Amino acid sequence: MKVSQIGEFGLIKKLAYQSAQNIKKNTPSYRQLVTGIGDDAAVWNPTVPFQLATVDSLVENIHFTLKTITWEELGWKSLAVNLSDIAAMGGIPLYALISLGLPPETKVESITRLYAGMNKIARKFGVMLVGGDTVSSPFIFISVMVIGSAANKDGKTLSRSSAKPGDKVAVTGTIGASAGGLKMLLENLKFSRKDATTLRKAHLTPHPRVKEGLILVKNGVKCGMDISDGLVGDLTHICEMSRVGAKINIATVPLSPSLKTCFGEKALEMAISGGEDYELLFTAPQAVIEQAQKRMKCQVTIIGEITAVNSGKVLLMDHHGKKQNLKQTGWDHFNRQ
Amino acid sequence: MKVSQIGEFGLIKKLAYQSAQNIKKNTPSYRQLVTGIGDDAAVWNPTVPFQLATVDSLVENIHFTLKTITWEELGWKSLAVNLSDIAAMGGIPLYALISLGLPPETKVESITRLYAGMNKIARKFGVMLVGGDTVSSPFIFISVMVIGSAANKDGKTLSRSSAKPGDKVAVTGTIGASAGGLKMLLENLKFSRKDATTLRKAHLTPHPRVKEGLILVKNGVKCGMDISDGLVGDLTHICEMSRVGAKINIATVPLSPSLKTCFGEKALEMAISGGEDYELLFTAPQAVIEQAQKRMKCQVTIIGEITAVNSGKVLLMDHHGKKQNLKQTGWDHFNRQ
Repeated sequence: MKVSQIGEFGLIKKLAYQSAQNIKKNTPSYRQLVTGIGDDAAVWNPTVPFQLATVDSLVENIHFTLKTITWEELGWKSLAVNLSDIAAMGGIPLYALISLGLPPETKVESITRLYAGMNKIARKFGVMLVGGDTVSSPFIFISVMVIGSAANKDGKTLSRSSAKPGDKVAVTGTIGASAGGLKMLLENLKFSRKDATTLRKAHLTPHPRVKEGLILVKNGVKCGMDISDGLVGDLTHICEMSRVGAKINIATVPLSPSLKTCFGEKALEMAISGGEDYELLFTAPQAVIEQAQKRMKCQVTIIGEITAVNSGKVLLMDHHGKKQNLKQTGWDHFNRQ
Repeated sequence: MKVSQIGEFGLIKKLAYQSAQNIKKNTPSYRQLVTGIGDDAAVWNPTVPFQLATVDSLVENIHFTLKTITWEELGWKSLAVNLSDIAAMGGIPLYALISLGLPPETKVESITRLYAGMNKIARKFGVMLVGGDTVSSPFIFISVMVIGSAANKDGKTLSRSSAKPGDKVAVTGTIGASAGGLKMLLENLKFSRKDATTLRKAHLTPHPRVKEGLILVKNGVKCGMDISDGLVGDLTHICEMSRVGAKINIATVPLSPSLKTCFGEKALEMAISGGEDYELLFTAPQAVIEQAQKRMKCQVTIIGEITAVNSGKVLLMDHHGKKQNLKQTGWDHFNRQ
C-alpha cells in the first residue's frame, strides 16, 4: 500500500502505534513524559533543570541514497546523528520529534521499516518518539529534533567555546571508518566481509557516544563536540568559538584499522577530512583527560594541543613537528555540490 | 550571491548575526537561555517545570509557491504555524530551531529575507531562534521546531482528549479567510484592495492565538486545538481523541466577512472544510466559555456541542436541526495530491 492510499492520518496512527509498542517504562524519558504523540505539542516535566534541543535533516540523494542504505538503517542514522549532538553536549537524550517529507507513492511498508530503525536506536538509548508531522514532498527528507537534559542539576555541559591554550586535544574511538564506508558504497568497492561490515556500519548505523559524553562532563571536561563535518573542520569550529589555535600530530590520529587495511596510503587523508564519524572530539588539561579515560570502555587518544597563537586555525604536523597540508578539511553542504 | 558561494558555515554565521540583532532582552526566553546558536545543541534553564515541543515542515510547491508568497511572508508563516501549536496547548512559546533545505543556487539575499520574516514574528512573540541546520536540497523545505512552556507551574495545558459530553464547542475569531486567500492566490482572482489584503494576510501571515490560548487555560478550559486542517477535520480529531461526538450548527459558524463578500454562497463550505485558519477551537461548559470570553479582545463564538453519541464523528446541522452534508472535511497531505 502507498502512503497516498492510507493518508496522512492513517500513517500517523500506524506509526504512533508502532512506536508505543517500543516504549521502555523504566527510563527517565517515560517518567517525565506528560503528553506524547497525538496532541498539538509534546509535554514533559523535566527533573534536571537544564534542557537541550537540537535538529538535523537528512535529504534523499544529498545525505543518503536508497541504493546503498536500507530503510531500517536510514531510520537508525537519522536519529543517531541527533543523539550524537546531545552526546556532544554531555547530555542525556530524552525525546525525538520527527518531521517526515514523503513522495505520495512511497510504500507504507518502507515507512514502517524506517520507524523500526528509529525505534531500535530510540529504545537502546531510552529515547521516546513523542511527536512530529508527515508531509507530502517530491523527495524524501527526514528532519529530526531531539530534546535532552544536562547530566546533573548543576547544568554542566560540553561546549565548543571553552578550549584553553595548553589543553590537549583528544578523540574517542577511531576515525575514518565512516568516510571509508561512504567511498566503498559509492564506488562499489569490494573488501573482506569483516572490513566491509565495519565500514558499512560506521557510515550507515553510527553509534552515538552518549555514555562517553556523560563521563567527560562528570570528570571535568568542559570543551567538546562530535565529529560530523570531519576532524579538521570540527576542530576549526572549536578554535573559532574558543578564539584559540590547535596543532594536531597527524601520526597520532587513531585511524580505523579497517580503513587502513582497505585504503592504505589514502587512509590518513580520508580520516582527517572525512565526516560523520560521530566520535567525540574534546579538549582538557592532560590530567583531566587521563582521569576520564580510566572510566571509559572505549579508546581515548590525545592527538594534539590547543595553542594561544593561530587563533581560529588548525595546523597539521608530522611526528617531526613539520607542517603538513591536506587537501580537504571538512564537509560543507553547499560547497561540495 | 548564491548560498553555494557563501557556503553552509558562512550562511549560518550571517543568519546567527542577523538573529542576534533581533533579540529582546526583557523576555522569559532570553532570561532562561544558557546556550544559543553555534554549539551542538541549544541549552535553556526553564522556570516553569512543564515544557512543550512541536515540529512542522513547509515544502515548496506543496505548502507554498514562491509565485504567490514573498520570502518574508514565508519566514513569518513557517514560524507562525508552530507558534500556533504552542498556542493550541495554552503554552508560552520560547525558542525555535530551524532546519532549512535549500537548492545551492538560492540567493543569500532570499534567505536573509526569509529570516527577516522569522525574526519579525519571533520578536513579536518573545521567541528566540536558538539553533538549526542548513542543508542542500533539490527543493526548499523549512522544518521548524518550537519549544515552549506551560503557562503556570501547575502544568495545565489544553489537550485534544478532554472534551466532555455537554461541553459547548467554540472558536476564536472568524473562519475561512485563509481558504479564501489560497483560492484567490491560486486562481489569481481580483477583489477590492481591502478584501484582497485581508484574505492574503490570513493565508500567508496568520497570527497565532498565543494570548488567547493562555486566557483559555487560566479560565479553566481543558480541551482545545488550533484549526490547521479545517474546522470539521480538526473537531473530528478532538472527537476521536476524547471518544465523544460533536454537532455543529453551521448557521452559527463565524465566517470571515471578506470571505462572504468575495465568495458568497461558497463561503460556508470553504470555511468549514478549508484549513490554516490558526484560530483556536475549544470545548468547555458554557459558563467557562463565557468567563474566558470576557477576558479576550477577540470574538469568541459558540458553534455547537459535544455529544456522548456518534463517537469520533462531527455532525453538521442547519438552524432547523436538520443534518447537512458538505463535500470536503479537511486537509490530508497525501490524499490531496
